[in-house]
Amino acid sequence: MADQLVYWPGFPGRAEPIRLALEEAAAEYDDTPGGMDELMKYVTPEFVDPNGNTPPFAPPILKVGNHLLYQTTNILLFLGPKLGLIPDDELGLYQVNELALTAWDLSDEAHNTHHPIGVGLYYEDQKDAAAENAKQFRESRIPKFFGFFNRVLEQNKASNSDYLVGSSLTYADLVLWQVIDGLKFAFPKATERELGKLELLKAFYDRVKERPRIKEYLGSKRRQKYSNGLFRHYEELDQ
Amino acid sequence: MADQLVYWPGFPGRAEPIRLALEEAAAEYDDTPGGMDELMKYVTPEFVDPNGNTPPFAPPILKVGNHLLYQTTNILLFLGPKLGLIPDDELGLYQVNELALTAWDLSDEAHNTHHPIGVGLYYEDQKDAAAENAKQFRESRIPKFFGFFNRVLEQNKASNSDYLVGSSLTYADLVLWQVIDGLKFAFPKATERELGKLELLKAFYDRVKERPRIKEYLGSKRRQKYSNGLFRHYEELDQ
Repeated sequence: MADQLVYWPGFPGRAEPIRLALEEAAAEYDDTPGGMDELMKYVTPEFVDPNGNTPPFAPPILKVGNHLLYQTTNILLFLGPKLGLIPDDELGLYQVNELALTAWDLSDEAHNTHHPIGVGLYYEDQKDAAAENAKQFRESRIPKFFGFFNRVLEQNKASNSDYLVGSSLTYADLVLWQVIDGLKFAFPKATERELGKLELLKAFYDRVKERPRIKEYLGSKRRQKYSNGLFRHYEELDQ
Repeated sequence: MADQLVYWPGFPGRAEPIRLALEEAAAEYDDTPGGMDELMKYVTPEFVDPNGNTPPFAPPILKVGNHLLYQTTNILLFLGPKLGLIPDDELGLYQVNELALTAWDLSDEAHNTHHPIGVGLYYEDQKDAAAENAKQFRESRIPKFFGFFNRVLEQNKASNSDYLVGSSLTYADLVLWQVIDGLKFAFPKATERELGKLELLKAFYDRVKERPRIKEYLGSKRRQKYSNGLFRHYEELDQ
């Protein structure tokens, strides 16, 4: 049976790096086959799994047989070796994981730009704080993270690699790609400005996007459009 | 040679779950032996490692021979099997990792209460937003996370276990314990109020604290005091 991914339908969100990994490896998977009804089962605090799994904290969830895994980077840690998306040296897995976690931290900070006070309130009720947070994000945080990843690419290029770890694509590359892509949607001006200064990172973004299976996926209906999810575009936050 | 942990001296911070794991396993380790000077080497964007490691994004860093690992939950993922702090079934590692990540997310949210606008600004320059964020944190986020972990303990108790995963202590328990302990310092009123409603979680906190090696460590000089780090106590944020 194919693994099942369960996530909020309607935007790429926190499931997207998992989809990119499955698509890059041409793995079979079902994407939230039960739709919203199925998802709601898992987000209810009273959820008790008939198979005895402890309750997931939040989607995305990967159903592997009778088991439920959650947390984006954890699901990738599980899938990485099976999908051929980690290097085969002893420490490679940890290098991939630390880079994936770091790129994913940037997506959390992107989320905080539109919800700096709390996820339980509307954006409209925290717009002033959002404007202040987004200014810091654009001027300090995007440059810090992008500069870091550009340095990692630079150091690995010394070993003739075009990717973050080892000699070929890993899931850390896909997490980073997805975060840059989300930022290009949410903060198009700030993101293009920073990418314009970082030749290696910009080339990396373009290279991953042109990988045949990624390109096919991005052009398919399986790729959902950005909307009011993790990455949101508010013009006033991208001045 | 013992592994070396490198972190900001002066508060427990993001290194503390790693210290707890090393202490619980009675492992030898050196804690930032070069002090601030050594740390500063790694936090400089120009850092180039003579051993060819890609640059760490931020401390904590674990030096394992000539290798550098970073990100708290990644270092624990690496140490967990060596220190006997994961279950031995196939999916146990992923269950531990997802719970560790989830508890660690709560520590990030605790950090955001005093820095909701940006880490590059002083608390004093974001006090109004901090007060609003902390209200959400106390009233919604602590209850949500604590309730979740109490349910995990409840479900695992059905298998006669006092811990989050499997039948004995894992590093996920130590991450959760450290986050609760940090919250008891930062938000003593809100934290005691919520723990008072959750018998299993409260008993879990007390039980981990009384483990002989943890107890000895907490009473030693190796355990640093909380101050202006990840967990901060501002009375006005704990009303």
